[in-house]
Amino acid sequence: MIIRPHRHWFLRLFAWHGSVLPGILFRLGLNLAMSLIAILCVGWYGSSGVKLTLAPFSLLGVSIAIFLGFRNSVCYARFTEARQLWGGLLIACRTLQRQALAICPHEVPRVTAMLLAFCYSMKHQLRRSDAREDLTRYLGDEAEIVLQRRAPTNYIELQLSQWLAEQRRQGNVSDMVYVSMDQSLNQLTQVLGGCERLASMPVPFAYGLLLHRTVYLFCSLLPFALVPDLHYMTPLVSVFISYTFLSLDTLAEELETPFGLANNHLPMDAMCRNIEVNLREMNNETLIPPAILPDARFRLV
Amino acid sequence: MIIRPHRHWFLRLFAWHGSVLPGILFRLGLNLAMSLIAILCVGWYGSSGVKLTLAPFSLLGVSIAIFLGFRNSVCYARFTEARQLWGGLLIACRTLQRQALAICPHEVPRVTAMLLAFCYSMKHQLRRSDAREDLTRYLGDEAEIVLQRRAPTNYIELQLSQWLAEQRRQGNVSDMVYVSMDQSLNQLTQVLGGCERLASMPVPFAYGLLLHRTVYLFCSLLPFALVPDLHYMTPLVSVFISYTFLSLDTLAEELETPFGLANNHLPMDAMCRNIEVNLREMNNETLIPPAILPDARFRLV
Amino acid sequence: MIIRPHRHWFLRLFAWHGSVLPGILFRLGLNLAMSLIAILCVGWYGSSGVKLTLAPFSLLGVSIAIFLGFRNSVCYARFTEARQLWGGLLIACRTLQRQALAICPHEVPRVTAMLLAFCYSMKHQLRRSDAREDLTRYLGDEAEIVLQRRAPTNYIELQLSQWLAEQRRQGNVSDMVYVSMDQSLNQLTQVLGGCERLASMPVPFAYGLLLHRTVYLFCSLLPFALVPDLHYMTPLVSVFISYTFLSLDTLAEELETPFGLANNHLPMDAMCRNIEVNLREMNNETLIPPAILPDARFRLV
Amino acid sequence: MIIRPHRHWFLRLFAWHGSVLPGILFRLGLNLAMSLIAILCVGWYGSSGVKLTLAPFSLLGVSIAIFLGFRNSVCYARFTEARQLWGGLLIACRTLQRQALAICPHEVPRVTAMLLAFCYSMKHQLRRSDAREDLTRYLGDEAEIVLQRRAPTNYIELQLSQWLAEQRRQGNVSDMVYVSMDQSLNQLTQVLGGCERLASMPVPFAYGLLLHRTVYLFCSLLPFALVPDLHYMTPLVSVFISYTFLSLDTLAEELETPFGLANNHLPMDAMCRNIEVNLREMNNETLIPPAILPDARFRLV
Amino acid sequence: MIIRPHRHWFLRLFAWHGSVLPGILFRLGLNLAMSLIAILCVGWYGSSGVKLTLAPFSLLGVSIAIFLGFRNSVCYARFTEARQLWGGLLIACRTLQRQALAICPHEVPRVTAMLLAFCYSMKHQLRRSDAREDLTRYLGDEAEIVLQRRAPTNYIELQLSQWLAEQRRQGNVSDMVYVSMDQSLNQLTQVLGGCERLASMPVPFAYGLLLHRTVYLFCSLLPFALVPDLHYMTPLVSVFISYTFLSLDTLAEELETPFGLANNHLPMDAMCRNIEVNLREMNNETLIPPAILPDARFRLV
Repeated sequence: MIIRPHRHWFLRLFAWHGSVLPGILFRLGLNLAMSLIAILCVGWYGSSGVKLTLAPFSLLGVSIAIFLGFRNSVCYARFTEARQLWGGLLIACRTLQRQALAICPHEVPRVTAMLLAFCYSMKHQLRRSDAREDLTRYLGDEAEIVLQRRAPTNYIELQLSQWLAEQRRQGNVSDMVYVSMDQSLNQLTQVLGGCERLASMPVPFAYGLLLHRTVYLFCSLLPFALVPDLHYMTPLVSVFISYTFLSLDTLAEELETPFGLANNHLPMDAMCRNIEVNLREMNNETLIPPAILPDARFRLV
Repeated sequence: MIIRPHRHWFLRLFAWHGSVLPGILFRLGLNLAMSLIAILCVGWYGSSGVKLTLAPFSLLGVSIAIFLGFRNSVCYARFTEARQLWGGLLIACRTLQRQALAICPHEVPRVTAMLLAFCYSMKHQLRRSDAREDLTRYLGDEAEIVLQRRAPTNYIELQLSQWLAEQRRQGNVSDMVYVSMDQSLNQLTQVLGGCERLASMPVPFAYGLLLHRTVYLFCSLLPFALVPDLHYMTPLVSVFISYTFLSLDTLAEELETPFGLANNHLPMDAMCRNIEVNLREMNNETLIPPAILPDARFRLV
Repeated sequence: MIIRPHRHWFLRLFAWHGSVLPGILFRLGLNLAMSLIAILCVGWYGSSGVKLTLAPFSLLGVSIAIFLGFRNSVCYARFTEARQLWGGLLIACRTLQRQALAICPHEVPRVTAMLLAFCYSMKHQLRRSDAREDLTRYLGDEAEIVLQRRAPTNYIELQLSQWLAEQRRQGNVSDMVYVSMDQSLNQLTQVLGGCERLASMPVPFAYGLLLHRTVYLFCSLLPFALVPDLHYMTPLVSVFISYTFLSLDTLAEELETPFGLANNHLPMDAMCRNIEVNLREMNNETLIPPAILPDARFRLV
Repeated sequence: MIIRPHRHWFLRLFAWHGSVLPGILFRLGLNLAMSLIAILCVGWYGSSGVKLTLAPFSLLGVSIAIFLGFRNSVCYARFTEARQLWGGLLIACRTLQRQALAICPHEVPRVTAMLLAFCYSMKHQLRRSDAREDLTRYLGDEAEIVLQRRAPTNYIELQLSQWLAEQRRQGNVSDMVYVSMDQSLNQLTQVLGGCERLASMPVPFAYGLLLHRTVYLFCSLLPFALVPDLHYMTPLVSVFISYTFLSLDTLAEELETPFGLANNHLPMDAMCRNIEVNLREMNNETLIPPAILPDARFRLV
Repeated sequence: MIIRPHRHWFLRLFAWHGSVLPGILFRLGLNLAMSLIAILCVGWYGSSGVKLTLAPFSLLGVSIAIFLGFRNSVCYARFTEARQLWGGLLIACRTLQRQALAICPHEVPRVTAMLLAFCYSMKHQLRRSDAREDLTRYLGDEAEIVLQRRAPTNYIELQLSQWLAEQRRQGNVSDMVYVSMDQSLNQLTQVLGGCERLASMPVPFAYGLLLHRTVYLFCSLLPFALVPDLHYMTPLVSVFISYTFLSLDTLAEELETPFGLANNHLPMDAMCRNIEVNLREMNNETLIPPAILPDARFRLV
């Protein structure tokens, strides 16, 4: 994620990091080339029967804007849901830690380790990266068993559940308190299930495809529709309109899959660390790792 | 469901599988034919008093785009709700399995079998397909009784509920734990009830009808409104605009009924298998079936 | 409710049942007459200073489309909420029945009768129809007492609650189980309260009025704005645009009050019957009434 | 609130009560005057360099329509939430009454009185009107103590809570039942907190201001942009467009504060009475006040 | 937050406080200068091939309006969620205080102090201001310990949780009541977690950047597109359109971060004081601080 770099409205106009501009620069260049071709052809163009006017493109442009607006809200809703689920993870971890501290204080270190392993394992599962290093830090040798599972994060939660059942069997927690802590475990299940759902189920492929195609065809034909009216101003206006439409298309595509490493994806490293800081501080531990801060390019991973 | 095949923006423009294009190709051909007729008629057309201009079509086109945007969000919301319900099914199954493992470990195989029977039965009920094979695998002879029921999935849940009541009667679970597990069963009821609601209650028929009609009439008249301005470019622009509108209409119709076997429907086979993998792994079973992967045409059923 | 009659895209263009067309045919006829008047007047019309052009109507038309889109989502949201509440009723009935079967099996017939009386009474209360026949079937002589109440459905739920309290007083259910079943009763209260809210509180009257008026005035003036450009094509385009706007206005109005007997209203008869089939099957009863199916005109009441 | 007076589509065009028309008539008159000035000036107007055309107003009008649509959904969402909270109040009162009837029947009259006092006190708190009369009717001398409080409604709920705690202390209700009824009290807290939030926190002032200003400036300049095209038809079209935009602006403003006494505000008197009828009927009381009905102008307060 | 200063529609047109106008006045001045340059250049402008027409700007303007509408609803949703979380804080505090008063009345002063410390600490954490003074008022010397924490508000809640666990260990509250009060503590965790989420996670930076840029470029080019049609009226229309677009862009940016001190941010001082008034009144305390009222410029902090 990019943390907003400049605050003054004027400087912000020229922000480079965090913009989607670098990713579409080549395509805008193509559009510029199309505009120059259109200016060169305009003489031959007007004399023949082949002509394009702006009116149908206006109708089409507004329609595409409406559908693009729909696609953006859909993709942004996925991003927001992902963020809320990770917010819910912090809440569930704090709650479980708080309950453990109140009910069975001597067992807290084990609970903390398992909660942190859960968070880091979920991060790696969603990013399809290697969880070995992080899991070994919290679980020791047990990490190997977790890593062989096809649903490793769920397995860690199962271990938490088994630990809780053991406490109940030993009479450390009553049925009432057991059920209450089990409901906090359910919140972990829901966060995990929700994130897996977002990761495994994209927006129907045909939506993105349809808009992707219409946006590109629209931008490619646009210079030829603008040139009879605007002549030498065609490149400026054509690239400007293309920038608006292509950016939104690209941004929506990025937000659709919020668990990656791109500029507008969730900073799961920083969020995992934040949960670790919170849980360790609740234990009155003294060696608490520092929070992860954005780098020089304002990126937070 | 189609799993996004190409990632590069340029190749994606020509994706064939997963597009709604094959389904509307014939109708785009009709539109092309209309455009050619319009070009042929344009001489006679201009001389008579019968003429169409683009301005009223622009007003109408934008209005249709707004209503189509509304219909799309409505249908997409149904698709999303269906997906969330199936996500909730995974969560409920994991929770029940986890609770069973913690409370009455020796009864777990029976719980797993009944949960899997519930999932597969719901899949077949929603698709109106034959559940015999799947149910026999999990329930044995009991499957015949289930298959005779008019609400088979609900009956399986009732058996789970009866099993839980039996555990309570035998004193294996306390009232507190009984109520907690009963609430997890309620989640199954809610998933089932939600899916049945989506399957039995379409978007009001008049909505789809109204937009279907206006979109088709609009696309049919469009060439005649474009031809005075665009002449030989009429077919290109007319087919392009028609493609945008017809695709969205077709896609919305497909998403309206998310439990079928079309390209953009839910991959319930893969989701049932995923639940099976999860539950079997939680039991430390060794014979776990492989996950279902998309086929060569990127389809996941 | 109309169950979608035709599936082929071409046949669907001419669907008659389930369309809102019959209801607005007279108004479209008026619009056609207006168009003919406009064509007759166009000579005198052009020579005088009195003229209408399409540009302001385009601005107004798009604005009305936006507001109409808003009104449609509002009314559709009411329809969806009504459907979800009835879906919640099925879920609550199944849950209560399931709990009764697990806890106090010998009392189940009485619970089933009261649950069914609740459903049918709610249906009649929402439709303001006579509940006598249905209530007598389930409650016998007690029906008379219910019918004299000003809040009959709530009274039936109170009887269920009294029955549950009686079971608790007799020691048949523990406090824990009592509270759990009482929460299922709360779901009935919420479904009832939600439906009563939808039935008693329309969308603010001024919204419908405002759009109703602007749509009609817009459609009436439209032919005069179209005629200078389109001449003999005016009737076709004017009636087409009017059809789109009037249909949506009429449909929104119908969806606003989802508990009636019109084409797009909820099929509460079929839903009550469905609940009855479910509950009776859960009791292993043998005399189960058939499901209600759509009639020859695809209507489901 | 205005209960829909006419049902026939034709008569409804001329509804006067419940329309926002009376409130904006003066402003429409100003717009008419502007249009006449525009017609008088059009000769001088065309000859000088000062001219306005419709194209930029079309762009601006559609933009304002989009923002007005946004503001309307925001304000309508506040109205709907207010209505849902009051619906939740009926549900919470019924639930508490039902629980009291089941658990401690001899204490019910006191519970009913306190619940009704809660409802009426909330109504007066939200309308900033004098609650003395209503509170004295239900609480007797205790009303004076309530009236001196800065948060009177919350104080009444506290009394209910104290009564419940007293029952628990006397052993009339078990901890389990106490917690369950306490959760129903929480629903009252949530309804009260939600209504206070809506009443104390308007939509950000700048939103309303911005749209209010742009709508008025737009309507004032519109006649000058219409007159070159429409000439003598300017007043009709200008007043029509202004009516649409001003009505929606006014209506949104009214819905923003749903707890007042205007035409489109919530009928809290009728809703309080409805709760009273429900609770008294549940007690089998014989003296039940009649429901409040709309007056001759279709208003329900 | 600005409390609406004028109520009459005419006076409200000229409201200065609470408007975003002061913040964009400089940018509107730039736009005015651009318009004057455009008028001066128009002679040379028409003769050369460099020309801009309104048609492409109309297409672009409507598209920007649609995307701006989307961004506004996104930012407003964040503002609303922030307000709802603070509303939830009042509800949770009232509930915990109510439960404490009912269960362990002699411990209430300590609970009140910790709840108020929680509220003020959260306010300072969200505004990144110094909490020393406020925390010392409620916690005395303990405040120093809290201030050294990296998650101070969470630490205060942990103290509340520890106090509750102590009550349970001493047998003052049963497991049942303990779990119920622990769930009210969960509400505090959720409010805190939700606010931290909103504060730490902005809307994806590229969204704001994209619209910021297109709005500014659009407004800068607009005068050159308007001048061929409007000539001397260009400055009026150009500044008017720019005002509408720039205001919405600025307002959305302000609402995106609802926890600051700007005009449209949440009045957290007043809300904290309101909670204090409520809790102290529930304790029957006599020294209750006055509510915070808007200042002479209608601002409420």
